[in-house]
Amino acid sequence: MIEAEFLAALRTLPLHPGARGLADDAAVVAGLIVTTDTLVENVHFLSYDPPGDVAWKLVATNLSDLAAKGARPEGVLLSYPLGDDGWDRAFLAGLGEVLTAFDCPLIGGDTVSLPVGAPRVLTVTALGGNAVAPPRSGAHAGDALWVTGTIGDAGAGLAIAKGAPGPAELLDRYRRPQPRLAEGRALAPLVHAMMDVSDGLLIDASRMAAASGLAVTIDLAAVPLSPAGRAWRGDALAAATAGDDYELLFALPAGVEPPVGATRVGWFAAGAGLTLVEGERPVPLPDRLGFEHTPF
Amino acid sequence: MIEAEFLAALRTLPLHPGARGLADDAAVVAGLIVTTDTLVENVHFLSYDPPGDVAWKLVATNLSDLAAKGARPEGVLLSYPLGDDGWDRAFLAGLGEVLTAFDCPLIGGDTVSLPVGAPRVLTVTALGGNAVAPPRSGAHAGDALWVTGTIGDAGAGLAIAKGAPGPAELLDRYRRPQPRLAEGRALAPLVHAMMDVSDGLLIDASRMAAASGLAVTIDLAAVPLSPAGRAWRGDALAAATAGDDYELLFALPAGVEPPVGATRVGWFAAGAGLTLVEGERPVPLPDRLGFEHTPF
Repeated sequence: MIEAEFLAALRTLPLHPGARGLADDAAVVAGLIVTTDTLVENVHFLSYDPPGDVAWKLVATNLSDLAAKGARPEGVLLSYPLGDDGWDRAFLAGLGEVLTAFDCPLIGGDTVSLPVGAPRVLTVTALGGNAVAPPRSGAHAGDALWVTGTIGDAGAGLAIAKGAPGPAELLDRYRRPQPRLAEGRALAPLVHAMMDVSDGLLIDASRMAAASGLAVTIDLAAVPLSPAGRAWRGDALAAATAGDDYELLFALPAGVEPPVGATRVGWFAAGAGLTLVEGERPVPLPDRLGFEHTPF
Repeated sequence: MIEAEFLAALRTLPLHPGARGLADDAAVVAGLIVTTDTLVENVHFLSYDPPGDVAWKLVATNLSDLAAKGARPEGVLLSYPLGDDGWDRAFLAGLGEVLTAFDCPLIGGDTVSLPVGAPRVLTVTALGGNAVAPPRSGAHAGDALWVTGTIGDAGAGLAIAKGAPGPAELLDRYRRPQPRLAEGRALAPLVHAMMDVSDGLLIDASRMAAASGLAVTIDLAAVPLSPAGRAWRGDALAAATAGDDYELLFALPAGVEPPVGATRVGWFAAGAGLTLVEGERPVPLPDRLGFEHTPF
């Protein structure tokens, strides 16, 4: 089944009141934010990615979902396939780094053995506290759409990881994403809607608009590229359809300035669908807005 | 790495105060019980097991950890590898059955695609509320060791699933384990220690004894076999080293009778290690006490 079909079927099962209809980045249970993310070898990471970076990414992507709900990390549970000594040790070193970096303790987990030759499948469940938990679906017509940081660096990093020439700085954005936890906490009480950008700016903005029952317009000229990203290729459309940014995307009433570094990239209006412009000029939608398969 | 080494390394990382040193069935976070379990195709279930039964087992094994902590299911998160339509639909049907049977709503999750031909890896994280959360490590010298239900039926069911002749009743015990939630809630306020029997009565009792810093003796003559289990093979030692029982194992002060159906199978004393007897007669320990790889 494709994901949309599977999710539609899940929605017919008994759902927790905090599950938000399986349409948000995370759920709210007894005041805690709960989210889970799985990484698959040769799907979400490359076999030759350093194991410590895989650990970092596995935890960081979950913490990014907490950031989008304005939560402080309470801790993570890890499901881990035991393998060869070297890989496991390097993974543990990276796990220690990411847990320490984001002040996130280990809560528990499970280890398994995989059949010989099977790709690694790793799952983390993250719990967060102190959350305001703004929904993905709360944007109002007239709200501005903002994004933290810069977009497209991780997409460039993925190309570099696969062999393209480019600076270590961009590779690092792909391999060691930085969940915007402090920004999420500062923004959560102010925003109408918030989510993280994991699958691409265009597809994730479309999802926020659809969840909010609105149309969204994005100005490609406003998409924030880093100096390194601009030098590497500098293509705003490629940047806005690449994944793995793990920046925060949020809706604020027009005229409200966010308290953290962020860029206004678009606006919401009555209607449906995504419109692209570059300044005043309309831009046709690309065939592909980003990646599919997101946590629910 | 082997599991023990990996766990030892994890224990050097920042741990949540509710993680119980990664030495219990579940953690306690903000008053919730949290646990995660992963099932791997051709490791924890057979490729030809009915997908609905895999869904049942995946959820039920997690709920069994909640039962061991006396918790009521709050809900589960699911990490699911999308595959062929038929398997996915049958899985969803079984998922609906198990969630309904145990009044356990879905909280959220993640879907992934696996590389072609990769074995399925499925993870559930369960949250539970209202828990007394007796530890695995609280047994006292002089306590009696009790177990709910009957032991070894699922082990027989596994042999039957692999082609041995035997009744559907035993196959069902393997494929559709029944987490002892009501029993766990009744027992939790009374016991000194409790855990579920997932890897085998002998190995799990040894773990409870080791966690409690005690020796344990088990009387094979007391191990409760079902009529079907007794008729199938009737070997108490085989039953006590088979896995997948998902009964509750608990320590009660001598003389205290449990309020639920259970059998006294042994006792704790100062010292260390496992001793086997059959009535008055000492029995040598088998080479293998049960399965390894447990959640932490």
